[in-house]
Amino acid sequence: MELLEQRILSDGRLLPGGILKVDNFLNHQMDPALIHEMAKEFRRLFDGEGVNKILTIEASGIAIAILVGLEFGCPVVFAKKSKTKNIADSLYTAEVPSFTHGNTNTVVVSKDYLSASDRVLLIDDFLATGAALVGLRELVNTAGGTVVGAGVAIEKKFQGGGDRLRAEGMRVESLARITAMDEGGISFG
Amino acid sequence: MELLEQRILSDGRLLPGGILKVDNFLNHQMDPALIHEMAKEFRRLFDGEGVNKILTIEASGIAIAILVGLEFGCPVVFAKKSKTKNIADSLYTAEVPSFTHGNTNTVVVSKDYLSASDRVLLIDDFLATGAALVGLRELVNTAGGTVVGAGVAIEKKFQGGGDRLRAEGMRVESLARITAMDEGGISFG
Repeated sequence: MELLEQRILSDGRLLPGGILKVDNFLNHQMDPALIHEMAKEFRRLFDGEGVNKILTIEASGIAIAILVGLEFGCPVVFAKKSKTKNIADSLYTAEVPSFTHGNTNTVVVSKDYLSASDRVLLIDDFLATGAALVGLRELVNTAGGTVVGAGVAIEKKFQGGGDRLRAEGMRVESLARITAMDEGGISFG
Repeated sequence: MELLEQRILSDGRLLPGGILKVDNFLNHQMDPALIHEMAKEFRRLFDGEGVNKILTIEASGIAIAILVGLEFGCPVVFAKKSKTKNIADSLYTAEVPSFTHGNTNTVVVSKDYLSASDRVLLIDDFLATGAALVGLRELVNTAGGTVVGAGVAIEKKFQGGGDRLRAEGMRVESLARITAMDEGGISFG
């Protein structure tokens, strides 16, 4: 998606350790008009797939997901990061290791909001190792629902998570695919 | 706002300890069409006030805020809850005690995303004691910006936070004002 790639080139910042900061338009300060265009593109990509639920993970996925839900006319659920190991019976849970923070989060969704009749589109801002999408997929599978696919804003393709998920049969659509980033700049592919 | 009040009556659940659960349409599972109508109402209420930034707090304020930002055509910033006491120079910080969880969070916003030229509309899902809005106001004031007002989905008016903020001069608009809730039901006023 040209619009997003251009924005990454103009406003993104590369930090040491392979971190791409896009927190001036995507995940601290957010540009609603840009995210709305992204949501319309996800709608176009997954049209006809019978999507009846959007699932994301707090916090920075929520803004994209609610606009995608508005386009599809379906509910949006966000998985919560839980601090407690003491998880209630009323919750689906999955473990999600964080690349950025070097720890593992337990993510939870109430059993009230995922079911076997759900055809779920997963939404997230970044795809790197794929750990978040693996966790979200596990939540849907445990509920007996169907993962229609995943829509992510920015895929760091060189980290391999997206291609691993595709090899496992998940349809993964990313709006900007970064093939390399270093002092020389950011390359898309 | 009739639409929201009706939804609270049909889908909200009262739990012991003065908790109103609306997590099937507002803050775990979210109804994008409802939240879009709420956003349009906030736009109507604060039209002509020169709003050029929306500020909310993660996680459940984000969905409302991004749709409000889409209506105003301005950026949306969410304050992050920080686990660390070790706060960087590049951040504005405020302390926010939580009524629901009985602890205190430090909330932070990058200094890049609040400035003296900002006319900020605060957005949140719930207003009870007002602690979150006090924290967000402090972030804006520290940056030298102007708080135009606050838009909240549900005000628990009997907890007094909203009226305290109004007495301090903040314009507070809530779309559903709960005056009482107990075994007898929920009353709006």
